[in-house]
Amino acid sequence: MKKGNTLFFKSQPRITSFAAVCGSKEKEGILGSYADVTLSDDMYEESTFEKAECKMLTTAIALAIEKGGYSEKDIDALLSGDLLNQIISASFAARDYNFPFLGLYSACSTMSESILLGSALVDGGFVKRVVAATGSHFASAERQYRYPLELGCTRPPQAQWTVTGAGGCVISAGDKGIRVTSGTMGKVCDYGVTDVNNMGAAMAPAAADTIIQHFKDTDTVPEDYDLILTGDLGALGSRIVKDLAWEKGFDISENHVDCGEIVYKVIEKEFQGGSGAGCSATVLNSYILTKMNAGRYKRVLFAATGALLSTVSSGQGESIPCISHAVELMV
Amino acid sequence: MKKGNTLFFKSQPRITSFAAVCGSKEKEGILGSYADVTLSDDMYEESTFEKAECKMLTTAIALAIEKGGYSEKDIDALLSGDLLNQIISASFAARDYNFPFLGLYSACSTMSESILLGSALVDGGFVKRVVAATGSHFASAERQYRYPLELGCTRPPQAQWTVTGAGGCVISAGDKGIRVTSGTMGKVCDYGVTDVNNMGAAMAPAAADTIIQHFKDTDTVPEDYDLILTGDLGALGSRIVKDLAWEKGFDISENHVDCGEIVYKVIEKEFQGGSGAGCSATVLNSYILTKMNAGRYKRVLFAATGALLSTVSSGQGESIPCISHAVELMV
Repeated sequence: MKKGNTLFFKSQPRITSFAAVCGSKEKEGILGSYADVTLSDDMYEESTFEKAECKMLTTAIALAIEKGGYSEKDIDALLSGDLLNQIISASFAARDYNFPFLGLYSACSTMSESILLGSALVDGGFVKRVVAATGSHFASAERQYRYPLELGCTRPPQAQWTVTGAGGCVISAGDKGIRVTSGTMGKVCDYGVTDVNNMGAAMAPAAADTIIQHFKDTDTVPEDYDLILTGDLGALGSRIVKDLAWEKGFDISENHVDCGEIVYKVIEKEFQGGSGAGCSATVLNSYILTKMNAGRYKRVLFAATGALLSTVSSGQGESIPCISHAVELMV
Repeated sequence: MKKGNTLFFKSQPRITSFAAVCGSKEKEGILGSYADVTLSDDMYEESTFEKAECKMLTTAIALAIEKGGYSEKDIDALLSGDLLNQIISASFAARDYNFPFLGLYSACSTMSESILLGSALVDGGFVKRVVAATGSHFASAERQYRYPLELGCTRPPQAQWTVTGAGGCVISAGDKGIRVTSGTMGKVCDYGVTDVNNMGAAMAPAAADTIIQHFKDTDTVPEDYDLILTGDLGALGSRIVKDLAWEKGFDISENHVDCGEIVYKVIEKEFQGGSGAGCSATVLNSYILTKMNAGRYKRVLFAATGALLSTVSSGQGESIPCISHAVELMV
């Protein structure tokens, strides 16, 4: 069933297990206590950053399957994507498995898009169990989107730091686990931001649009949620999303938290905080879902955001179209 | 319902309209008579190849909506992706519309992946109507994946020619139109091919794997289909897929056709034929679906294939993982 842009999952597919892998910088923060694997070397015993990124994603997928007590044959499909050109981390991770692969691209909102589509496939009765996963790596993202690390470019104050990490979860038919009750599909929003170092400002309107759409479609208000969790807006973007929602009559200031804001211990060093597909993937699939299982949060609206630019589109003078997909999680 | 890797669509979502746009070289072949818009200048009045690609995709989406007698408000979501880094053609095309966007990446099998997922969303009762679309542009693909056109590099004999074109279709709940009866999700197959100019050989095993999986899951044989349509294997890849299927006990030689083999008039000039996400998107959404509506083909298995490599993965010595998603179409 659908109302507005929100799909309602009648059977309430369950997140039955989850796992996260994070890098050496990330383990200094909350992920250090909650991630399943924390790296001391971000190369992860591989020869390139891209291979390390792929290995993190592969590990997160494998651990999510294992922690749920499942084996490869129990999984009907993997829904995944990442930030690298042609989503090579996800494609190469999928190569290691004998189940089907549905490739997605939604930049840093891939985690919520994959949970949304995966839950639809489970709720529609098409599959019993899927894995939704994504990740990112600071070093591979920097050299693909910005500058070679060796250049040592100065980062502007509005910049964020791409999280080195990957996370994934298993979504199953059944009645045990964290319920995925609905999902709001995002529209592309473009407020004309062209500063590729200011992703928070570019993505905040998309987050606000989807979150407000979700409230309207589900007849809820911000107070109904223990947590309204965005993906990687960072400190500046988080202020903007609160403002935009407030302007539309929704005060989310009391319960809004951004994964990018909480992922690092000393946020000043990373300026606006964490970013990347791995940011919300790691925080959700460790800290947040663990807290939900413990009953600390009972109802969470998870709205990750993605900036759908490329170096080519920016080079050709285009602004940054952004999107946010949201899923409602309940225990 | 699912058997093996095949999702069965009980309500049989319908392709109620479709449209295709093709470039100047492509209109010399069958697309000249069947595409809705044929360009005389592949720049399509834009300043860059990428913007021209995006405009073709936007036009195909708009025409598919218009030809079905729909307006923007009748569409519940767009499922799309393309070959450009971060699928900018699809993302920027989606920016023009007020409906949600689900970004996909499956290289040249994006057309079948988008029909498969779109049909699942319709059949699951989540949405009434979606658009599935993709496209590619020779010039943007060449400079992203291979060499700048200005270099005038010699093409090896096993090379294919990326189709300049875009196609899309509207998938609706209801009982009029071409039925999407099932969809087989592909697994990643990698036979170790590393020659980035020989996509047909790399992708053929994935096509064979999915086609055979489909036969097994649906208890069908090749003769049950009027057409087994692959996306862009080209001449060499088509020979390989026939061989691989034959080795597994399925003789598809009588009714296998490859969009890449039929898209150009004089195939010798393009060596192995057409390729790119736009190859199967244009041929399916013009020639094939028109013939199906006319009753010429009653049952078609459409199995587009995608090569999930990037310039980075190839540069790092990786082989080419490939995938094929298939959908069964019936009138």
